[in-house]
Amino acid sequence: MNLDSKIRVIENFPVEGISFKDITTLIADGEAYHYSIEEMIKVFNDLQYNIIVAPEARGFLFGAPMAVLTKKSFVPIRKKGKLPFETLAYEYELEYGTDILEVHQDAIKPGDKVLIIDDLLATGGTVSAIVEMVKKLGGEVVGIGFLIELTFLNGRELLNDYRIETLIQY
Amino acid sequence: MNLDSKIRVIENFPVEGISFKDITTLIADGEAYHYSIEEMIKVFNDLQYNIIVAPEARGFLFGAPMAVLTKKSFVPIRKKGKLPFETLAYEYELEYGTDILEVHQDAIKPGDKVLIIDDLLATGGTVSAIVEMVKKLGGEVVGIGFLIELTFLNGRELLNDYRIETLIQY
Repeated sequence: MNLDSKIRVIENFPVEGISFKDITTLIADGEAYHYSIEEMIKVFNDLQYNIIVAPEARGFLFGAPMAVLTKKSFVPIRKKGKLPFETLAYEYELEYGTDILEVHQDAIKPGDKVLIIDDLLATGGTVSAIVEMVKKLGGEVVGIGFLIELTFLNGRELLNDYRIETLIQY
Repeated sequence: MNLDSKIRVIENFPVEGISFKDITTLIADGEAYHYSIEEMIKVFNDLQYNIIVAPEARGFLFGAPMAVLTKKSFVPIRKKGKLPFETLAYEYELEYGTDILEVHQDAIKPGDKVLIIDDLLATGGTVSAIVEMVKKLGGEVVGIGFLIELTFLNGRELLNDYRIETLIQY
């Protein structure tokens, strides 16, 4: 199946000059959505992992179904203040200002093998913050998967210690 | 499987007096997560529907895997400003103030049969806003499913025109 054709490209969103990759058209197609999840699982078939980690909100759309289909543990990464138990908070730099992500402190333990999933690899900033969070809790990042990669932003460079897989490239 | 035992109850979150139902312990258990999604699908097995709609962010954790397993269309409901295409925005009342939800205008069409999914039924405010949004786009709500129901808040009363299913009750 040609997944590229399921993505809707919207110019000048959220700001002038950005060519936004809209995944809602892909997930609105039940067959394409199922196929994309199966393909994201398949590219990591040779790896051993017990936890899938993904950031809210779009990361949940891919990481959560992957966890359910493979019966792995799913660990959500959330914005500050959303998780009810004790958290590890991590502040990281954005293009303008900073943001804080949180993960439950008991969600990842030493020895856990973690696959990180998100919808889109742009500069790699968010996922590289998540890598640090996983490591701080003692987990080992064994792979990082994205539905879409914006190759011209060179996000792979920031993550070059890790195995990266993407299904659709721009 | 006893799903109730997989929920972690955290007192006084997010504010004093609230006994918060933490679903992260359930989704951290791969078998329990898979089982909960299968059960949520099973309780609606007698219904015909082609779209699953769920609000960000926790609604995605249940609605998205259900859509993938059943190969249905998944339509996300998002906070204002997150969806890139033309949206229907809907303002609704919260305990203090109002909130705005959005859905893509082309995501639901007349004749579509919609199952709405969220993690938790409390007062029913968010989901009853989503019911109105689906109807405004011409869709028919055929059922509403939640993992958890807080029965003492009587959320069902607000939604009493609809078939409601919940797996865990408090």
